[in-house]
Amino acid sequence: MSGTDDGARRLALLIEYDGTEFVGWERQRNGLGVQEVLEEALAVLAREPVLLEGSGRTDAGVHARGQVASCRFPRPDLPEEKIRRALNGLTPPDVAVLALAEAAPTFHARFDASSKSYRYTIVNDATSRPLARRQAHHEPRRLDREAMQAAAATFVGTHDFRAFAKEPENKSSTVRTVLSSRLRVRGPFLHYDVEGTGFLYNMVRILAGTLVDIGTGRLDPDALPGLLAGGERTGAGPTLPPHGLALEEVRYPPGSFAGQGPNGAFQSIG
Amino acid sequence: MSGTDDGARRLALLIEYDGTEFVGWERQRNGLGVQEVLEEALAVLAREPVLLEGSGRTDAGVHARGQVASCRFPRPDLPEEKIRRALNGLTPPDVAVLALAEAAPTFHARFDASSKSYRYTIVNDATSRPLARRQAHHEPRRLDREAMQAAAATFVGTHDFRAFAKEPENKSSTVRTVLSSRLRVRGPFLHYDVEGTGFLYNMVRILAGTLVDIGTGRLDPDALPGLLAGGERTGAGPTLPPHGLALEEVRYPPGSFAGQGPNGAFQSIG
Repeated sequence: MSGTDDGARRLALLIEYDGTEFVGWERQRNGLGVQEVLEEALAVLAREPVLLEGSGRTDAGVHARGQVASCRFPRPDLPEEKIRRALNGLTPPDVAVLALAEAAPTFHARFDASSKSYRYTIVNDATSRPLARRQAHHEPRRLDREAMQAAAATFVGTHDFRAFAKEPENKSSTVRTVLSSRLRVRGPFLHYDVEGTGFLYNMVRILAGTLVDIGTGRLDPDALPGLLAGGERTGAGPTLPPHGLALEEVRYPPGSFAGQGPNGAFQSIG
Repeated sequence: MSGTDDGARRLALLIEYDGTEFVGWERQRNGLGVQEVLEEALAVLAREPVLLEGSGRTDAGVHARGQVASCRFPRPDLPEEKIRRALNGLTPPDVAVLALAEAAPTFHARFDASSKSYRYTIVNDATSRPLARRQAHHEPRRLDREAMQAAAATFVGTHDFRAFAKEPENKSSTVRTVLSSRLRVRGPFLHYDVEGTGFLYNMVRILAGTLVDIGTGRLDPDALPGLLAGGERTGAGPTLPPHGLALEEVRYPPGSFAGQGPNGAFQSIG
């Protein structure tokens, strides 16, 4: 984990953000991306442009409690904790760098990720919850929660998730591996937690929408095996809105960065 | 719980609100109060002005997950669930009527309340949490959580809480009874939960600020018995900001309204 010849080092960042006011992780022309906010703060400290690589994009309105990003940082003199605090001073209150550590010289937040975990939150009650409205999707219809829990479990495994992706490109594979998939019920809140080695575009929001269709009875659970074997997009449920989704954790192989916990993610902090 | 001679009935409402954009519960000249928003919606349905009595005021920026209010409602023809849904259609997304029930003819949300429960939430970490920033106070200093938990327990009982009130009026009593008082730790989040038969102005925010002063070591726990026996305001901790506070539950004697749970509050819903 020593610096390279030019004195630069690689850094890994753990980032939380409220996605409400952003166009997503990536730089875009139509508004502010989280990446851009952080790159500009990094450039101030580095005194030169810095390219920040996220573990993956998140769409406009999607939140993150555990986004991971990497970058080359040229100034060997600045201690990590100093960089972290300076970044938090330079960024708006809806973004925070929770941890920052020296990474292995070849570490790349996207290419090296071994798994990602997301949570999709639904308020399932006739009435919405004002205090949760920015981070949970409101579904007023009565849902069969046991049926949804059983369906969630069937997503585990290696399947052709073509039916659960927005506009899959025909040339690239739509086979992905889901490591865990579970619906947790806490009063009116339904938390759909899913971990996978990789996800297709909009996949988590479509998986959650498919669970809702199972819950209302609109979709028969018997249709799931066919959908999970490269079925048609129209057979799966709708893409639920972005504000219910949060990227919770990204894991990496051992030795990727300092401060890595036994599960491969940043050590849980606080 | 039958109607009065003029066909009017009394209603009890269970209300959740995000206090961020309000000047508080009460009508004020300098902005919008939650009471006002609901009274105007009720007036549309009642076709005459309706006076809504809250269980108590909440300050600007304070939230509620379980505010209770009462009113006289003149139209006997409208079923409760219809009124509730119409109110939710007429009010903005930061207010929701979670339940609405017929109340005893003399029911009054303020005078009849037997206890109230509040939660004050602190993020105790060097870095704030963007996704919690509207509903939690950020305290970056290292806090001795065991000392805070021990101090929280000493608040239980009937004490003269003069030291924990903003500008107490000398003529009225500052003796109050705290039924439970506990600090819960969940990762970087500290939840201070307190239930009492009544609270002085700003009392919960000052109790929470006193716990923080215990946690930093600024205040010696040995000072607490004196403070709880009518001590000076200057001896207690600061008034923490409003956005960390939420009114969680209000309890009433049995028979106050339909849909009352065994603990005297609205049946938990959802």
